[in-house]
Amino acid sequence: MTGLPQGPLDREACAALDAADPLAPMRERFLLDDGVVYLDGNSLGALPAATPPRLAAVVTEEWGRGLIRSWNEAGWIDAPRRLGDMVARLVGAGPGEVLVADSTSVNLFKLLGAAVRARPGRRVILSHEDNFPADLYVAQGLCELLEGRCELRTVPSSGLAAALDADTAVLMVTHVDYATGAVADMAGLCAAARDHGALSLWDLSHSTAALPVDLGGCGADLAVGCGYKYLDGGPGAPAFLYVAGRLHDRVTSPLRGWMGHAEPFAFEPGHRHAPGVQGFLCGTPPILGMAALEAALELWADVDLDEVRAKSMRLGDLLVRLVDERCTGLGLELASPREAAGRGSQVSLRHADGYRVVRALIDRGVIGDFRSPDIVRLGLAPLYVRHVDVWDAVEALREVLTTGAHRRTEYGERAAVT
Amino acid sequence: MTGLPQGPLDREACAALDAADPLAPMRERFLLDDGVVYLDGNSLGALPAATPPRLAAVVTEEWGRGLIRSWNEAGWIDAPRRLGDMVARLVGAGPGEVLVADSTSVNLFKLLGAAVRARPGRRVILSHEDNFPADLYVAQGLCELLEGRCELRTVPSSGLAAALDADTAVLMVTHVDYATGAVADMAGLCAAARDHGALSLWDLSHSTAALPVDLGGCGADLAVGCGYKYLDGGPGAPAFLYVAGRLHDRVTSPLRGWMGHAEPFAFEPGHRHAPGVQGFLCGTPPILGMAALEAALELWADVDLDEVRAKSMRLGDLLVRLVDERCTGLGLELASPREAAGRGSQVSLRHADGYRVVRALIDRGVIGDFRSPDIVRLGLAPLYVRHVDVWDAVEALREVLTTGAHRRTEYGERAAVT
Repeated sequence: MTGLPQGPLDREACAALDAADPLAPMRERFLLDDGVVYLDGNSLGALPAATPPRLAAVVTEEWGRGLIRSWNEAGWIDAPRRLGDMVARLVGAGPGEVLVADSTSVNLFKLLGAAVRARPGRRVILSHEDNFPADLYVAQGLCELLEGRCELRTVPSSGLAAALDADTAVLMVTHVDYATGAVADMAGLCAAARDHGALSLWDLSHSTAALPVDLGGCGADLAVGCGYKYLDGGPGAPAFLYVAGRLHDRVTSPLRGWMGHAEPFAFEPGHRHAPGVQGFLCGTPPILGMAALEAALELWADVDLDEVRAKSMRLGDLLVRLVDERCTGLGLELASPREAAGRGSQVSLRHADGYRVVRALIDRGVIGDFRSPDIVRLGLAPLYVRHVDVWDAVEALREVLTTGAHRRTEYGERAAVT
Repeated sequence: MTGLPQGPLDREACAALDAADPLAPMRERFLLDDGVVYLDGNSLGALPAATPPRLAAVVTEEWGRGLIRSWNEAGWIDAPRRLGDMVARLVGAGPGEVLVADSTSVNLFKLLGAAVRARPGRRVILSHEDNFPADLYVAQGLCELLEGRCELRTVPSSGLAAALDADTAVLMVTHVDYATGAVADMAGLCAAARDHGALSLWDLSHSTAALPVDLGGCGADLAVGCGYKYLDGGPGAPAFLYVAGRLHDRVTSPLRGWMGHAEPFAFEPGHRHAPGVQGFLCGTPPILGMAALEAALELWADVDLDEVRAKSMRLGDLLVRLVDERCTGLGLELASPREAAGRGSQVSLRHADGYRVVRALIDRGVIGDFRSPDIVRLGLAPLYVRHVDVWDAVEALREVLTTGAHRRTEYGERAAVT
């Protein structure tokens, strides 16, 4: 279905898939060492070739020579909205509905705070137990600050729709699960939230530029997402937030700052929200991070997300099939949905010794990551991951597990692996 | 007193002051065009020569080649604390008391929220009417979110100490006024706040690296500051926050995120604050901005802040005296304190047509900025501003005002000048 040949697969068959891949030329637009199989683009996207010269120009020309004048003359002041419109196209939002700013967690706080205030009398932020923990922390922090005005309630993912009721202010869901890659039913949950008068708030960190997202078509109310994963904006890139146009007059950010003021340079003592998503700006935008993200977004402007999705599904199916065929009896269990349609752009495998397996793979130039307690997470960023990379990764995995290489003592200690 | 010669001043005398300036060699460590007199380093610091190669290495080597491994191997994960310790030295804080993260406004929200919660039963955030408006916006946003739990009360600067009472949770003061450069009495106000059981919270945006600050010696409780002004960290550089060590067990951030968790990689469903300032981290740190700021902080590590202050006062006195002597009757009025000791590293002049005067100066290569309603603001960053620059700036000002060049119609419209 996703284009894998019948019959036994070998590296040559994978190379043939690459030769027929319409996205194959995109790899040349990234600076990736040949010796590396990079399967962690879902944590930190690779470096676009356009980024270093762009950043150098912004630093030496715009900052160094333009100095303060560049806020106007180089368009720095408009970057949050300009980049927001570039992200909008990738997530099914319209112009003026997306803003690039701050971090995902800070943006989530803004939107959760805004949502709770927009639904007076409703106390519950509803989410799923297996949500990305940081998203739960953000909600917990807001609830503690509000001292009982609202509470976070978590249920299993499968029970979200049933848990909605007249006390739900906002339904907070991560679209693609960070650990397993499972895709939530955005259209169904948006409709269910709407039926109960609750707002829906989506975390698109593992969805954006990994698969087509249709915020508008699903009737999503609010969303946040990350700039440094599939978007390739660089480490700690600015994040984004989305507010559906129909809500622009009804939700306001609790995090104020001069850039979100209707007239930042009037220096009035009282706050007046800038219209639309601009009112969700807070402090001064991080221009160097913005510049790197913009270079990446220009690359994405040339990409057809349906082609991305087709390749992503094919890469995932290939990985699943190769693990099935070549790693039998090696202690691996598929943690991701087996059906490509239910999976984001990653394949996660459980292994009792997962952390050390990941470390051993990294030593072999196959870079994935580990997620507690036992997940070997392999991201498949379709712009630069090749079918032969998947082959090589599975071969390395097989070699590690058959030789027991991962049991070497230096892999014992857990360090931070993001 | 600050080293200006007696008798009439001319450009040669200014050049002689430069020749005797122990900080003069620092200018070579910045990339500044010769034709520019840059008097806006209090809004956006100039570009250190070390920054472009550093940033290029971080992008191509650490991101491009190191990829996800650089979080550990290149020390990205420790950047907020490492850079915080570098800032600490400049503001009289100890190791582990300063964190580099987010924007000034976001950090202010964290600390205000923490302060209000640390003073249960007290309702008032006390500040001065002429505080930087964004700081007031942040407090207003918090109060609105908390729906009556706290309120912002503003009084004239001179009335702050008298307005403290048993209902004051936190005293929020900007140390150096953004418009006039007036320096607040940090030691006195900290003591007054302490006497009333209130916490003190300082905005050091216009103080940091402009003059010696002694948070510890003054007994300040909390502070925030900016990375892109005198620190030279680049446009939208990460900001910093300070929490006095004695409060580390008693204040916690309302803005949560995985990086502020005690064990970020445990991915626990419940939040546990990391100890100390680390618990005030929220999302993933912006590594490109961090790298640029670190290059600048390394430059600052070689600098004696007492020398900086001495030169800053001398530059300011020179500017005030030249305006007095050479711009009589041209409609200028000193908005800054006349005494150098009461002034930060800027001189502000009121002029009824201030905006157009600033535009005309910029056309002449003298870059200052305008602050509503009538302030021509001239920043004097002592690492790269020379005494001859001050001379040239005043001469340009005199030429503009005597010829009426600022009345040209194209200066009529106000654009954003930060």
